[in-house]
Amino acid sequence: MSFVTLTTDFGLKDGNVGVMKGVIWGIAPQAQIADISHNISPQNVPEAALILLRSVPYFPPETIHVIVVDPGVGTQRRPIAARIGDQLFIAPDNGVLTRLVERAESQDQAVTFIHLDKRQYWLPNISNVFHGRDIFAPAGGHLAAGVPLEELGSRIEDSIRLSIPQPERTQQGWLGQVIHIDHFGNISTNILYDHLGEAPDAEVQLRGTVIHGLVKTFGERPESDLIALYGSSGNLIVSVVNGSAAGRLGAQVGDPVQVKL
Amino acid sequence: MSFVTLTTDFGLKDGNVGVMKGVIWGIAPQAQIADISHNISPQNVPEAALILLRSVPYFPPETIHVIVVDPGVGTQRRPIAARIGDQLFIAPDNGVLTRLVERAESQDQAVTFIHLDKRQYWLPNISNVFHGRDIFAPAGGHLAAGVPLEELGSRIEDSIRLSIPQPERTQQGWLGQVIHIDHFGNISTNILYDHLGEAPDAEVQLRGTVIHGLVKTFGERPESDLIALYGSSGNLIVSVVNGSAAGRLGAQVGDPVQVKL
Amino acid sequence: MSFVTLTTDFGLKDGNVGVMKGVIWGIAPQAQIADISHNISPQNVPEAALILLRSVPYFPPETIHVIVVDPGVGTQRRPIAARIGDQLFIAPDNGVLTRLVERAESQDQAVTFIHLDKRQYWLPNISNVFHGRDIFAPAGGHLAAGVPLEELGSRIEDSIRLSIPQPERTQQGWLGQVIHIDHFGNISTNILYDHLGEAPDAEVQLRGTVIHGLVKTFGERPESDLIALYGSSGNLIVSVVNGSAAGRLGAQVGDPVQVKL
Repeated sequence: MSFVTLTTDFGLKDGNVGVMKGVIWGIAPQAQIADISHNISPQNVPEAALILLRSVPYFPPETIHVIVVDPGVGTQRRPIAARIGDQLFIAPDNGVLTRLVERAESQDQAVTFIHLDKRQYWLPNISNVFHGRDIFAPAGGHLAAGVPLEELGSRIEDSIRLSIPQPERTQQGWLGQVIHIDHFGNISTNILYDHLGEAPDAEVQLRGTVIHGLVKTFGERPESDLIALYGSSGNLIVSVVNGSAAGRLGAQVGDPVQVKL
Repeated sequence: MSFVTLTTDFGLKDGNVGVMKGVIWGIAPQAQIADISHNISPQNVPEAALILLRSVPYFPPETIHVIVVDPGVGTQRRPIAARIGDQLFIAPDNGVLTRLVERAESQDQAVTFIHLDKRQYWLPNISNVFHGRDIFAPAGGHLAAGVPLEELGSRIEDSIRLSIPQPERTQQGWLGQVIHIDHFGNISTNILYDHLGEAPDAEVQLRGTVIHGLVKTFGERPESDLIALYGSSGNLIVSVVNGSAAGRLGAQVGDPVQVKL
Repeated sequence: MSFVTLTTDFGLKDGNVGVMKGVIWGIAPQAQIADISHNISPQNVPEAALILLRSVPYFPPETIHVIVVDPGVGTQRRPIAARIGDQLFIAPDNGVLTRLVERAESQDQAVTFIHLDKRQYWLPNISNVFHGRDIFAPAGGHLAAGVPLEELGSRIEDSIRLSIPQPERTQQGWLGQVIHIDHFGNISTNILYDHLGEAPDAEVQLRGTVIHGLVKTFGERPESDLIALYGSSGNLIVSVVNGSAAGRLGAQVGDPVQVKL
């Protein structure tokens, strides 16, 4: 039994996700495949990096995560494989693994990168526009079939990293930014529990609106109240109880968020 | 082999559905998992209840249905498990199983409810905002791994029920309402074959439009005709042949529907 | 191990896709099921035909492809099964397999059609509106469980074919049309590499815009440049580097495309 996940910006209409599953099963018929997301905004590598950070730890060890958010398809960007802690990855070398790598390093976990430069682990014909099908899916399939990571190509040490925006300490507290808006309209920021602690009296300022105090859970406030609390990954989030905070505030990724302690 | 289904209002962008699959596979690696829907309108418990009613009977006996439409996450609402007839369920105690329970009772099938109050069957860390990951998915995984339902918690008899709107007999026929609008724009009502029978001469009134007579199938009328017929679950539906009835009539869930016999 | 794919216009909200998986697993518990697309435009048989053409070859031999894009549900249109080359199909007899059949014939591969006329391979109760659940999924399940194709019904030779628009030779080059617009806004045409060859100097005209020369890959041009190149199936496509060509040009399926050599 081997587990494979797929994360792409392909959407769900054109059949490309199904094609990748077909390629994987052709190489590793026993692979169990789960979708993480195929609705990453087109070419949005930082968004994919964030969703992976939150999702990957909940999969079994040795799960193979195949990621195709690939603005550089058909350029010289390298296809890579990686072992990060106890999980395996196939991705374009564009920084999409940065957040996972940084967390692993902060926890003293080993990280290994491989340049996928052995063509015998690709499909025979390589298009210039769909490496998800032609390179990434077959590489993932070979891992799922038991080929060791190191066998897929050459060890590299210089994989690309994104610059991840970090919140800054201010005189009164912290200045961070919006990093994600989820399906419900919850606004997630890069300010963490590790920065603020419980902070029941913190003042959160976003898009000209001030929220007084952090709550622990939606249930403390009545429906449609605007609240600040910690999300499921420990990030400070701004929400509307059973409503959309992003809709109400017009918030967008990149908006500044101020916290006064 | 065990089968698990997932029904949520999470949407498909943020990775939360994938995370639940990872948690389940971590506990029950052999589980086969199918999505029923992740596009339930946010917090819309009645909508989820209806889609489950129509979907659940088509899965094999002992399938485990994990449902996370959960406006009460982080409040005192209980997480529950249930056996309804020959199928198993994990859900928040908010009435989402009501329609299934009512059907089972009308067919003299056994129904058992369990309060998921044993923390050893949850993840070690429980967030206040994502019980789908932290409580419901692991409980479903343990069922899939063979843990008996009764082992997951304490028997309860007072699970929450929704009040399901029923059509009323009128002098001339029936007064019901729109309960669902599907992807094609078919308008589904709570008036059933059991209420009307074949009724080839019934007059169906909705949003100021009158449809004369019920047909048996789309094929009886030319493209773009507005028709009334029975849907795949025996509900009276209003449709446009190869078009959208909801689009044409502007119909919404809750609209009254009158039938004159 | 048997593989099944699903291609429908059902969307992902109403639970109908999950229901088909439940029916298949009830008959063939070991089946691995992948979605190709459930976002085919309602009743758009030509669109489904094109997506299948591009997806099917990447699945393992003997994969069973179940297709439900079915404007004729509830009419006299036949449910059919087919073997095309080394793959198996269950579909309504409405031409959705035409492109696959034409390719197979051009490659001298065998094609066999069966009318699904044996009710013992359907569900016991057949609705007039959801043959995906009642006829197509169970037929696919029986194939997945090992029932031979010929056992499901009677051999036929007169299955329906679509008329597929072909590009025409002009004095200066080729006149074709837009056949698909993908999730990224890439505009795909029915003009092929086989028509044009490398053609680095070809002039591509679409919606009043002229593109001078074909490139081999996105990487040859800067972000947001409008380019013409070959897509992953060998079709001439018009794209914007990391942007949406369909959005920029307002292109639609059916638009004429001229190429001057």
